[in-house]
Amino acid sequence: MSRRADILVLHGHVFTTAGSGVGYLEDGAVAIAGDRIVDVGQSSQLAAEYEACKTLDATGKAVLPGLIDSHTHSPEALLRGVAQDVPDYMEKAMSPFVRAMTPELALAGTRLHVLEALKAGTTCFTDYCPPYAGWAEFYDQVGVRARLTPTINALAADTMADRTKILYEFDEKAGQHAIEAALEFADRWHRAADGRITVMLGPQAPDMLPVDQLMTVMEHAQKRDLMIHMHVAQGDREHRQMAHRYGMRSIPFLDSIGYLGEQLFAVHLTEATSSEVELMVSRGASMGLCSGAIGLIDGVVPPAAEYRRLGGRVGLGTDSASSNNSISMFNEMKLTALFNKIRHVDPRSMPAWEVFRMATAEGASAIGLADTVGTLEAGKQADVILVDLASLNLSPVLERPIRNIVPNMVYAATGREVHSVIVAGRVLMEGRRILTADEAAIRKEAQEAAEELCRSVLRDPRHAELALLEAMRAGLL
Amino acid sequence: MSRRADILVLHGHVFTTAGSGVGYLEDGAVAIAGDRIVDVGQSSQLAAEYEACKTLDATGKAVLPGLIDSHTHSPEALLRGVAQDVPDYMEKAMSPFVRAMTPELALAGTRLHVLEALKAGTTCFTDYCPPYAGWAEFYDQVGVRARLTPTINALAADTMADRTKILYEFDEKAGQHAIEAALEFADRWHRAADGRITVMLGPQAPDMLPVDQLMTVMEHAQKRDLMIHMHVAQGDREHRQMAHRYGMRSIPFLDSIGYLGEQLFAVHLTEATSSEVELMVSRGASMGLCSGAIGLIDGVVPPAAEYRRLGGRVGLGTDSASSNNSISMFNEMKLTALFNKIRHVDPRSMPAWEVFRMATAEGASAIGLADTVGTLEAGKQADVILVDLASLNLSPVLERPIRNIVPNMVYAATGREVHSVIVAGRVLMEGRRILTADEAAIRKEAQEAAEELCRSVLRDPRHAELALLEAMRAGLL
Repeated sequence: MSRRADILVLHGHVFTTAGSGVGYLEDGAVAIAGDRIVDVGQSSQLAAEYEACKTLDATGKAVLPGLIDSHTHSPEALLRGVAQDVPDYMEKAMSPFVRAMTPELALAGTRLHVLEALKAGTTCFTDYCPPYAGWAEFYDQVGVRARLTPTINALAADTMADRTKILYEFDEKAGQHAIEAALEFADRWHRAADGRITVMLGPQAPDMLPVDQLMTVMEHAQKRDLMIHMHVAQGDREHRQMAHRYGMRSIPFLDSIGYLGEQLFAVHLTEATSSEVELMVSRGASMGLCSGAIGLIDGVVPPAAEYRRLGGRVGLGTDSASSNNSISMFNEMKLTALFNKIRHVDPRSMPAWEVFRMATAEGASAIGLADTVGTLEAGKQADVILVDLASLNLSPVLERPIRNIVPNMVYAATGREVHSVIVAGRVLMEGRRILTADEAAIRKEAQEAAEELCRSVLRDPRHAELALLEAMRAGLL
Repeated sequence: MSRRADILVLHGHVFTTAGSGVGYLEDGAVAIAGDRIVDVGQSSQLAAEYEACKTLDATGKAVLPGLIDSHTHSPEALLRGVAQDVPDYMEKAMSPFVRAMTPELALAGTRLHVLEALKAGTTCFTDYCPPYAGWAEFYDQVGVRARLTPTINALAADTMADRTKILYEFDEKAGQHAIEAALEFADRWHRAADGRITVMLGPQAPDMLPVDQLMTVMEHAQKRDLMIHMHVAQGDREHRQMAHRYGMRSIPFLDSIGYLGEQLFAVHLTEATSSEVELMVSRGASMGLCSGAIGLIDGVVPPAAEYRRLGGRVGLGTDSASSNNSISMFNEMKLTALFNKIRHVDPRSMPAWEVFRMATAEGASAIGLADTVGTLEAGKQADVILVDLASLNLSPVLERPIRNIVPNMVYAATGREVHSVIVAGRVLMEGRRILTADEAAIRKEAQEAAEELCRSVLRDPRHAELALLEAMRAGLL
């Protein structure tokens, strides 16, 4: 009892994800002091060595690194369920809702989104949206880790919804304003909350800023050592714009302006070809994979297996409740493993351990936080979750000849088995009760905000173009 | 207050699935008397008309027909998580476990399986396995609906695991014994428990019985008006056997012996060609689709969308915890919708309402229970579930311009939102507490049984061939 800890997690099935595997420890323990992990080992040893203010008994539970959502748009939680099963997600489903969004509504969406995900074990949110008052403050208050990315584009309002334009006209003032706002935001929030909140620069897509503004963003990123978080090779719209404006595809274009490098976290790559994947990996860029969202809105499985086979790092992201309906990294692990088996017609593609690492150690690395989180190791930030295995759908728990815990967390868990969540050494949820926010109030606020948003949409005559109105009339919803 | 009901469900978002849509009723109610639904309508009307022994307040909840699992192998719940991510599921993962199964262990598996599924809203189980003592009795006791199918094959033990044999030798005595056992089982259990338990005849696959025994099974099925429940066109093994033995593919072969008809519920059709699908549908056979299992073990999406486009009926099935890891029809609805979008590279493929109907009205029809269950209509059996929408992951609940409840139940629900379950007018679960079985005892029993099974596997030297042992050694599990 010579060393002091604030929290001692004892008797768990510990998965550290350190090294190249899942790092299993039977009857394992984690000691936390302040915001850091100070020790990981056998329960008998740590129980003998540490005197702790608080002990969490993890008997019958898995103890994991907190899950990392590498790409998500939190305000869109208000739009869950209004935009799926349609051919043109953005124009025929989302756009009237997006037009009606206000900063107040966005905050209600973010709150709902973060709480939903926290209850499913997400501890780190790489959140991407137009910055609004209260956004970062909420992340600060609730206590999760955030990698915030204020959207930067040079588009006039409504450009995205108007597909009649063969080529967007850039609104350079809007672009300049967005860059300045992002930099101000970075000044205020990068490494804030004891480093728990950090900022990435987010040019929205290669087709959404003129080249000189893309270059300006990159210069600022390099000067300030900020990563770039960007949608790349996402689909038809971007492809057409790039072809018309530059006569090039997105990835070669980005390479030509020096964008491909370790500083880049490129999301989606829905349409990336094999040679483009090779180019991205060779330049050291990371990939964000949103399996659920791209499956639901495009019916496509992005080339993440190829990316990884070539040595690239891939993080998993939920994208949004409007494109995915679910903000759960457990869902994302499962869909990634299954979709890749289908893409490759091979049950060996993306086994459980790989997607588990993509949601933890590899995800942390992809978004530039490898030194901070993603594994349970002394010195890392104490982002730890406990998953209750004493649940019918995770039973039985077996050790030999095959240990079935990781496969069952990937293929059988719902996310609701997450029992407790610790971020930076602070217990944010215990026994499924969120300690740092009022769940019932936030759900009620989101419900009222979404109803207000829907009333605005109904006042916009263009909502008559929504593709799902036909399904409503046919009694299918 | 002139009419009496045993149970009145009031103030729900009712989805009847009657007709061709989801049959939505705002502030809807369901009146139940005995084992039947006697009325469905507006809450104000039914509250005025009925005096009920028990009232369930469904405010903020969705009220749905109980979900129908059209194909599943319940004993394999004990094997959850030991057999995924491998190239040869049966030989390199399952077979040592299957060899070690005993009737006592099977019962522990069935109990775990049924309770897991019940907690996720499954009310009807089309369970397929070698019959053992206590199997049907447990279904009777716990109170769910079951369509039990005793496995019939003419294979010597271990045949499935030995791929060195180009052609199985049939063990006709084993086949005869299995037929007799199935008929005895049908005599005892078909239409037992007030009709809640029924029996189907289950020749395991076209390659697993000699033709004369297949014909014998069909004769008995016709004489007794029993459906045939059969694995068809499931993969390489079957295809090779059929090619060697008959020089024919499974579906034309089955047609040649008069098997294709309304009496047939054919499961998987993993390898069915377009013309075979057309033939099946034209003959009136139904299809069982196990999206999760076939995705996980084969990386394949069976041709269910084609089957339905041609007018065929398709039910959804979980298959087993060893092939799918999850026994939840919510999981199955989601995976079916997403996998088909990927197969067809089209977000419109298998929209939420279609898979919702496949798990209810259409599933009932596929397994021959269209007159009994699958919709909420007066005269149907009272199999009803309540789903709590007051959950962060199902929020917000919206009505206009787009009602988002069905999409969110399909794409966002985990199954854990199921609040209460009624089967044949009896409340089996209320507020997530199972009333007809001891959940903790059954989970403990399954854990002990699975550990015993694993000890048997470890004593079998052939377990050294398990593909996942390599992953164990590499620290990946």
